[in-house]
Amino acid sequence: MIAALDQTDPVALAQALIGCPSITPATGAVFDCLEAMLLPLGFTVERFLDGDPANGGPVENLLAMRRRGDGPHFAFAGHLDVVPPGEGWASDAFAPEVRGELLYGRGAVDMKGSIGAFVAAVARSEAVSGTISLLITGDEEGDAVHGTRALMGHMADRGVRPDLCLVGEPTSVNRLGDMIKIGRRGSVNMWITVPGVQGHVAYPHLAKNPISPLVRIMAAIEAITLDEGTDWFQPSNIELTDVHVGNPATNVIPGKATARLSIRFNDLHRGADLAARVRAIVEAEGGTLEAKISGEAFLTPPGAFSALISAAIAAETGLTPELSTTGGTSDARFLCALCPVVEFGLVNATMHKLDEAVALADLERLTRIYERILSSVATAS
Amino acid sequence: MIAALDQTDPVALAQALIGCPSITPATGAVFDCLEAMLLPLGFTVERFLDGDPANGGPVENLLAMRRRGDGPHFAFAGHLDVVPPGEGWASDAFAPEVRGELLYGRGAVDMKGSIGAFVAAVARSEAVSGTISLLITGDEEGDAVHGTRALMGHMADRGVRPDLCLVGEPTSVNRLGDMIKIGRRGSVNMWITVPGVQGHVAYPHLAKNPISPLVRIMAAIEAITLDEGTDWFQPSNIELTDVHVGNPATNVIPGKATARLSIRFNDLHRGADLAARVRAIVEAEGGTLEAKISGEAFLTPPGAFSALISAAIAAETGLTPELSTTGGTSDARFLCALCPVVEFGLVNATMHKLDEAVALADLERLTRIYERILSSVATAS
Repeated sequence: MIAALDQTDPVALAQALIGCPSITPATGAVFDCLEAMLLPLGFTVERFLDGDPANGGPVENLLAMRRRGDGPHFAFAGHLDVVPPGEGWASDAFAPEVRGELLYGRGAVDMKGSIGAFVAAVARSEAVSGTISLLITGDEEGDAVHGTRALMGHMADRGVRPDLCLVGEPTSVNRLGDMIKIGRRGSVNMWITVPGVQGHVAYPHLAKNPISPLVRIMAAIEAITLDEGTDWFQPSNIELTDVHVGNPATNVIPGKATARLSIRFNDLHRGADLAARVRAIVEAEGGTLEAKISGEAFLTPPGAFSALISAAIAAETGLTPELSTTGGTSDARFLCALCPVVEFGLVNATMHKLDEAVALADLERLTRIYERILSSVATAS
Repeated sequence: MIAALDQTDPVALAQALIGCPSITPATGAVFDCLEAMLLPLGFTVERFLDGDPANGGPVENLLAMRRRGDGPHFAFAGHLDVVPPGEGWASDAFAPEVRGELLYGRGAVDMKGSIGAFVAAVARSEAVSGTISLLITGDEEGDAVHGTRALMGHMADRGVRPDLCLVGEPTSVNRLGDMIKIGRRGSVNMWITVPGVQGHVAYPHLAKNPISPLVRIMAAIEAITLDEGTDWFQPSNIELTDVHVGNPATNVIPGKATARLSIRFNDLHRGADLAARVRAIVEAEGGTLEAKISGEAFLTPPGAFSALISAAIAAETGLTPELSTTGGTSDARFLCALCPVVEFGLVNATMHKLDEAVALADLERLTRIYERILSSVATAS
């Protein structure tokens, strides 16, 4: 079946990948499918598993490379795992189906469609020199512990370091090409615990109400303005996301109070600094804080790479993409440690939703844009 | 068995009452037992049920009256219901047992012991003129909805209104007679709800975090100083007793936040005024407030009645009781609408605890104090 695929047809490639169920964390068949597409195109493919069931694994990761001469190393990064389909699809989420002008299936836009487009673009770029690689993980939608970070460890062991990296996440909002991501905000969650001494409300001198210091802590946190934003980032933002005391008795002063907050921050901050700042507030009131940094902020300042991508998009769509840093996190937060990273892919309107679908025409247009990018990178070197 | 009781022996009377299990709400046998004690002493006894299982009932209430000439009407108020015994008693909680100098059993001090003492005091006071009544409910330890308030309704229907009322709650702290209560703080609980709009933390402009206004509300509440106390009351006190958001997801801004508070207030305040004051703070932030007033504060200003009780205590114990308004609520909060009310009874160290016990000597001393009070009231008229 795979052998009969037209390697230059992104729709056929996307269908083949969608047909392999790969709810995060993913391993096995869907990687077999991708490997079978890449080997005929001259790629060497390395695959390995990371993690085990006790800690969120196993996760499969794939590094594919094709070297043609001494040109720059251009990496395409992405993931083959998908979020669970949920109930209520009009068709089987893992049986790709074309209805009208759309291809339906889990992963159509996030992001088996763009992987198919990238493979097709490479298949149409036999003449392009330099090194092309695919950095593909099975753990982007989950904890991302055993995915791209493990893949980067493998690359470091092998001495592989790309010069430019395009992450194929669905960054387009209303029309293909209207937005690319040149950075992402960082994200850190913090858990606050304030101890007290339980007692009866009629005898407050015998108790110590932990809610009072927690209110002062939360008020101090609410009063923080982290920044006013930058040229490329919106202002960093703090949200208190939960408060919990868990005291069912109206006449009891509780013995403990907790709260949780989330900060999405721009490149003026580091997660550890933010945690230290909030911890100082919490500890001054006798509380404790735990912080978990999901990712640091990163920015690939607008320059030659983003201009090259914008030009490719404009040539195919007539649109000038907005250079954005909005939204959640992606694996670009890790990859930015290697080289300039930009994210560009399909329209994200249906990602993570029921009846996820991609326009057939967009798959073809995206393939041509990726083809132009490969050509421009090789030419620019 | 009841017929063989010595009506002047408070220990025997207390044992008989403790032997009738009467976990709140109480009805039946324990009231039969008390009625059988009172009828031979010349009391008319009226009993009725209030409430039904669907709303916390049924609860039995008893009004016993003995009229001798035109002297003042002195009422003794109390309750025959008890709190559940809990696990771990050294003896059966409802099988009264004398060990050493103590009588053990649920209700020994709260407050079957003081009811026994009062009945014995009346039995020893055949010569006292005026009206003596017992206002006894089976719902003081519970919601108190179908208890003393219903009994007061019954009294109003019958045109019965005492001139003075002694509530036999266990007010003594270390030694019998060291404290009487001349008032109680009021109590009101309030529930605050702040609506928001749920959303993703990465897109706060599309959500509305209800925790932010709730923090402002709680900070404003924490900043309130209700008063500095009065000659007879400690300062009124506000405690936030619970905060609940219930949001398990770190990346979600929640859609609702709630908090609960309790105010114990002195006679400078009314529950409704306090609710209005807090409601104004809450509504200014878009929230709503529900208030439930458990009882208003009351004070029987020190005067002839408390002096008479203090003198009786001093004569039997040598102690000058502290005139206190501390602690939780009691049915005195309702009875104060009828006449001056003072509370005085046994040592409260073991009330609501395992192995609740009363000193046999205290039952006799308390009987003598009650006897002196009855005599003094009749003489003072």
